This record gives sequence, structure tokens and C-alpha cells, in this order.
Amino acid sequence: MLAQDIVKQLDHLLPPDRFYTDPVDCLVYGYDNSRKLFPPDAVVFPIDANEVCAVVGLCNEYEIPLVPRGRGTGTAGGSLPEKGGIALSLERMLRIISVDPGNRVIVAEPGVLNQTIQEAAKPHGFFWPPDPSSAAFSSIGGNLATSAGGPHAVKYGTTRDHVLGLKAVTGGGTMISTGCYTTKGVVGYDLTRLLVGSEGTLAVITEATLKLTPLPQARGGLTAYYHAAASCAEAILRIMALSETPSAVEFLDEGSLNLIRSRFPEMLPSGARAMLMIEVDGAYSSIPESTAAVLAACAGNGLIHAEEAPDPAALWAARKTLSPLLRDIAPKKINEDVVVPISALPEFLEELARLSARYGIANVNFGHAGNGNIHVNLLVNPDNMEEMQRAGDCLNDVFDLVIRLNGTLSGEHGIGSEKRPFVDKEIDAPTLDLMKQIKRVFDPRNILNPGKLFP
Amino acid sequence: MLAQDIVKQLDHLLPPDRFYTDPVDCLVYGYDNSRKLFPPDAVVFPIDANEVCAVVGLCNEYEIPLVPRGRGTGTAGGSLPEKGGIALSLERMLRIISVDPGNRVIVAEPGVLNQTIQEAAKPHGFFWPPDPSSAAFSSIGGNLATSAGGPHAVKYGTTRDHVLGLKAVTGGGTMISTGCYTTKGVVGYDLTRLLVGSEGTLAVITEATLKLTPLPQARGGLTAYYHAAASCAEAILRIMALSETPSAVEFLDEGSLNLIRSRFPEMLPSGARAMLMIEVDGAYSSIPESTAAVLAACAGNGLIHAEEAPDPAALWAARKTLSPLLRDIAPKKINEDVVVPISALPEFLEELARLSARYGIANVNFGHAGNGNIHVNLLVNPDNMEEMQRAGDCLNDVFDLVIRLNGTLSGEHGIGSEKRPFVDKEIDAPTLDLMKQIKRVFDPRNILNPGKLFP
Repeated sequence: MLAQDIVKQLDHLLPPDRFYTDPVDCLVYGYDNSRKLFPPDAVVFPIDANEVCAVVGLCNEYEIPLVPRGRGTGTAGGSLPEKGGIALSLERMLRIISVDPGNRVIVAEPGVLNQTIQEAAKPHGFFWPPDPSSAAFSSIGGNLATSAGGPHAVKYGTTRDHVLGLKAVTGGGTMISTGCYTTKGVVGYDLTRLLVGSEGTLAVITEATLKLTPLPQARGGLTAYYHAAASCAEAILRIMALSETPSAVEFLDEGSLNLIRSRFPEMLPSGARAMLMIEVDGAYSSIPESTAAVLAACAGNGLIHAEEAPDPAALWAARKTLSPLLRDIAPKKINEDVVVPISALPEFLEELARLSARYGIANVNFGHAGNGNIHVNLLVNPDNMEEMQRAGDCLNDVFDLVIRLNGTLSGEHGIGSEKRPFVDKEIDAPTLDLMKQIKRVFDPRNILNPGKLFP
Repeated sequence: MLAQDIVKQLDHLLPPDRFYTDPVDCLVYGYDNSRKLFPPDAVVFPIDANEVCAVVGLCNEYEIPLVPRGRGTGTAGGSLPEKGGIALSLERMLRIISVDPGNRVIVAEPGVLNQTIQEAAKPHGFFWPPDPSSAAFSSIGGNLATSAGGPHAVKYGTTRDHVLGLKAVTGGGTMISTGCYTTKGVVGYDLTRLLVGSEGTLAVITEATLKLTPLPQARGGLTAYYHAAASCAEAILRIMALSETPSAVEFLDEGSLNLIRSRFPEMLPSGARAMLMIEVDGAYSSIPESTAAVLAACAGNGLIHAEEAPDPAALWAARKTLSPLLRDIAPKKINEDVVVPISALPEFLEELARLSARYGIANVNFGHAGNGNIHVNLLVNPDNMEEMQRAGDCLNDVFDLVIRLNGTLSGEHGIGSEKRPFVDKEIDAPTLDLMKQIKRVFDPRNILNPGKLFP
């Protein structure tokens, strides 16, 4: 509970419709796609940087935990107010400050949805490449906080590659401006990318200068089916050796295909145990050549068949149903987004199957294979404590495997609270210590999203 | 001069052929392309991270300035030992640790030349995109320290976009590992990009994991000549609105064209007062379409003519002679690399001409116009003090102009010592203060390249 004098001061800072303390109102601001619940003591809805600054200043003065929040679509618990305090919802900072197609730039506030940015850019022939599955309802502030990616990152990179500059309020209550308005700029330290992916632990982003990319003229889709995951993994390596990088290279394992079969029985060849969904894009004239090159790279040991997709949109729709479908067969999934070097994919998938068998934990694996970014889903019943324990042990081994293969624990979801216990498998103690010191520079009283990201 | 006990300790750390104290040997390590000279008291040549760590540890203990140095090709004075102390030359850390085309990665030590990386990548169908003019003789360590770019940055980005991870020794003497081996990764703060562009003020990079890009199948070159800079600037905007971004869009002003005419009298149309050199790349099949699109975008008010270049290599050779040619007409040039939003290029070029006339300082301007990154060269006689004073005033106004147009002081050269007095035109005091605090976290006793980068 917030002390009464804090409530009084917040009452001065914000009008009543932008400051909630009723537990009923606060409840949903304690929730995200990690499916855990830590209701805050209050929720504030600033509408500009000055208000953010005032709230941060107050929290800093009284050492009140302050948890910045976009739309709560994160899966790692990054926006959960674990220690209570105040949820800082940025959902009402909704202004698109400028659309500047001549310079390929949009400047926007953090609450603007990813989808809204796309709609603002599209009429001018541009898009903003970060494309998390949640793009229709996640905010750019959240995308920035996690350096969100998606299927097209294989060609276009992730959020950190598409931000030119930021305005932000540090945990110490200082307004800062990072980066610049142009695609080149090397004046001072790169604080922009230090904030991107920092999960709201360093500063609250109040404005972002986003770099736009020209929309490709044309797209083409392909599918390839394999008898075994191993031969599919070999094809991924051949595809990623092409001189034209596809715009998406998505892998689906046998478990994923069985899920799709449960909804679309006729869609997939019966012998298929692994599948690739590939997209190419570029100039109109380049599509046939790119498609032919990908088809040739798909060919090899274990291929059932590869073909152009008559309707790429239907393909993506099927791919997008996977996450919800997983809940049909298991009430809870432990949803990871590990990354391994693509040359290690065959070994990774083989070892995953072994771990699944050893621990008796079903898993379903799919994802952005061109980057080696695989969504490993352990399917569990949360009411079965013994199974949950086995799943935890299995997960620990999965992470050890990823590190042994020179991979990383998270490609796009972030650490939040969910992956916190595992961070020191990846980052050594001196480097972690340095990160903690940087945190103290930005947030000397540890008010911003306290306890997150660090082990 | 180093105290005798320091010399004795360094003698223990390094064999005599990797530790110089003779002023004659040290002289060239006090020099770079800023053309200033600050000889160090000693030069050390570590060959591995442990030796770097030992030297940093010693300097940290005795608070001796330590200036990391690649090949001294920087133009901003970043590697000059202004305060004496020790020059840490990384030119003997020359190992390419691994070439891993399957994962599009090369791991290398900082002394490896950019060109050597290209030669290691090319047989596998890849390249490393950063392409400063100095690529044949500059080291990747130096490229990383400045986030070097070049003509192809307009399509491929700069150094910071092509690094996955680093090993480094902080000023405090701690070995750290940043980033990861894969193209996606969001575990912990992005220290990789914090070090990239930090000009050796935070840590000494001892190993870099570089991300490779597939070599394009084909390239095409074009030239376009204009009656006036203003119409040329309009064409740049049309070109940058195309759905296929060219791989280079280089601008040359009238002064640049006159320089080329002095060496190649027949090369350029007589009425031309501005020129674009454009390159497109991609799949074989895409080149005719991309070329046609660029030619169409070149057309407009003020165009003399635009055409495909029969020999793009000759074109680039002519462009590369510009910097040396400048020295023919003026013994010294003040060589800047400012950036403005491309929509501001017409106003920028017009104002530059006005400033040049007002101060009576000849200038020649060319550069990476697709990014708005223009090399502004003020041509001066260093022995004429009055002219040097006028040039300084002119430069100050140029920087004010750049900031007013929402640009940045440096696109690829960095701050070093040359642009230090102007940094606070661009970065506000609270943000600068935060950067200084970050410097203290990495380098608590301010031994690494002291006095650089900050105003």
C-alpha cells in the first residue's frame, strides 16, 4: 500500500482519471503474458515527458518501485510489479509526433502501437521492421524495452537496428536525449542501444525516433516438408548460405505440425515431421530468381517436397495459430525463445528430443530458424507439482545445452523475471557486475523495475 | 617521461621488442590523420588479452594515461596521446580466431585489418560491410572504436550494425564479454554497442565477433550531372524514396568536380556543378530494374544527364582521389563529416556556400549523401594565422547550422580531440553528465584515452 502522503502528492501531479489506487482498477496492471500476477499499489497514466519526470522524481525521493509498462504482451514478466509500488502505464502517450518519409523517420511516443506505426508508414512506401507476433497490440515502448524481433528479423534485424534516438527519463529523474535524427552519428556513447533491451530498468522512454525501411515491391512464399528434423536443419544452413537472404525462414517441428493437423487436417503431407515456411521479398523481378534459389537450397536429403505457396497469407495465418493451439493440448506452456548458431541446430534439436524423453516432458518447437531462434515450448500441467519440477529440471538442462552450443538464452523476449535465475549461465560475473554499476548510474535508488533482468 | 620503476615493471610484462621507450621509436605512435603529434612516453605491443590486462592493470595502479591505438588512420585525433603516457598499439593482435561462414561470423583480434577480414570472408561469399576509405590499412579495432562507416553505409549501415559481441578489458582492468555469437540476443544490457564508437575511452577491445553479410551477386554504377547543387540535392531525395535503396549515393560539389577536372580534364561535362555517383547491387536479375529506377529518379530540374557507368571501378577510383587531391590546392584541410537529414541538404549546401563567402574560406564538399553525411573540407593555409582564425569561426557556424538542421557533428570520424569543443552543441548537459558517469564505471581512474570525446 502507498502511504497516504504519496497518494496525496500523486493526486496533485495527475488528474483522477489518470491515477488509479482502487485494487480492482490496478489488478490488470499486474499481469502480462507470463501469466503471473503482481498487482501494483497504484497505476499512473502520464501523457507527456514532464509528467513521467514528476512521477519518477517522486518515486525516487521516496524509494517507491516504479514499473514501466506498455501493453503487457511480454512473455518474460518484464512488466510485472513484483515488489508492488506503482505501475507506470505508457498507454496514453499516443502521439505520433512526426511522419517524415523524406528522411525515413517517424517520431512517436512509447504508447503508440507497432501496428499504428506501420499504418503511418505504409502510405509513404515504408515500414518499421520489428514484427513481434503481438505487433497488432504491442506498443513500440514495449518493443524498445525488449528489443523485440519476429520472423522478418532474419533479413531486417531487430528493434535495436531500427531506432535512431530516444528521449527518456532516468531512474534518477533526469531527462536525457540519446542518438540523433540521422542514420549515421557517432557523437558520444551509444546510449540509445543501451536503453533498447534494458527492460525499463534504466530509464523510461518518452519518445523514440524510429528509422523506416522501404516496403519491398513484392513477396513470395514457399513451403518445404521433410521426413526428419535433422534434414530440415541441414536445409536451413543451405538457405542461409544464399546470396539473397530470405525475409523469413520459419521452422516447425513434428509437434507443431501435429497441432496444425488437429485444426487443418488436410493441410500437411502425412509423412512430414518438419517443415520450413520461407518468404522472399525484393524487387518484382527478383522474386522468381530468389524463389528458385530457395527451392534449390531446400532440395536434399530427407525432403518430401518443396513448393511455392499459392497463398502466403494463409500460410502465415496457420503459423500464427500455433501459440494459441498449444494451449489446447496443455494448460500451461513454458515458452522459451533460445537462440543457437544455425550450424548447431541439428545437434540442438536432437538433444532437445533426448531431454524431452529423459524428463518425460512433451515439447513443441518452432520459430525463426534463419536466426537460430527457436521457441521451445515445454507443455505442462501447472497443477501437477511433480511434473512442474521435472519441467524445471528439463528447462535448466535446455539452457545449459544452449550455452554449450554458443547460443543465448533469449532472442527476443528478454529476461524479465522468468529467465532471471539463468542469466549467470550466459553472462560472466565481472560483466554482470559492470551492468549493475551502469544500472546504479541511471537509477541510483533502484526504483525502476527493481529486481528484473539481473540474477 | 615514465618513472623508472614503471619502465622496470613493463620490462617484466613484455619482451624488449614489444615495449618501446626510445623517443625515436615512439614518435610515429603520436601521430594520426588529424596531422597532429603527441608522442607517447612509451609504446607497448601486447599480443593477447592477458597482456592487455596486465598493462591496463599497471596503468590503473599508477594512473598513467593509456591510449589504445589501431593503425592511426583516424582523422579526429582519437588515438593521439595528448597527455603522454603509454600508447597501446594493437597492431600485433593479428589473429583471425575463426571463420565460420555457416553462421556468418568471423571472430578476430583488433589488429586485423578491415581488408584482411574481407579477404577471409570473400571466398565464402560474404563481406563485412563497414567500408571506410582506409579499409585497406585500418584495423577492425579502430573501425569498432569509431563505428566507422563509408559509402555503402546507406544500404548496409555502419560498424555498430555488424558486431555481435566483444571481449574487452575495462579501464579498471576487468576482462568482460559482451553480446553473443548469434544475430539475435537480448540477455543483459547492450554493452557491445556501448563500446562501439567509444573511441577507446571505456575499454580496450581484445576480440570481436563480426557479423558477415552475403556478397551481392551483381553491382551496377551510374553517374548523374547537374547544373546546380540544389537540383542535385532534390534528386537525392527522390533516389532515397525508391523501394530499393542503392548501395551507394555519393555527392560531389562544384569544388570537388573542379579538383577531378584538374587531374582528368576530359572526364566531366563542362556545365556540371554537382554530380552523383550511385551504385546499386543485388541479384543479377534486379540490376536492370534498379538501374532504371535510379535513372528515373535522377531525372528532373537541373539534370544535365544521367547514365550507366561503363566502368564503375574507374568511377570509384576517381572518387577516392578526392581527399589526396584536396592537398594539392591547400596545404591543410579542415575535414569534417557532418550529417544532416537529407531533406535539409538543399538548405545546408546553400548555407555552406553563404558561410564560405562570408568568411572567405574556400570549401569543397562531397560525401555519402544518401545518409546526409557530407565531408565538408575547409581549405586553409596553416601558416596564415588570420585565415586559420576565420576558418575556426566558419567551422563554428557550420556546426551551429548542422545542429539547427537536426543533424549531427560526426557521422563516421568520431570526436577524438578535434571536435571535442563542439560536443555540447549536440549533447545536452544531463546526457553528457550521464556519459561521464558511465566512463567512471568503466574507467574509475580515467586512464583510458583521457580527455578525449568529452568537451
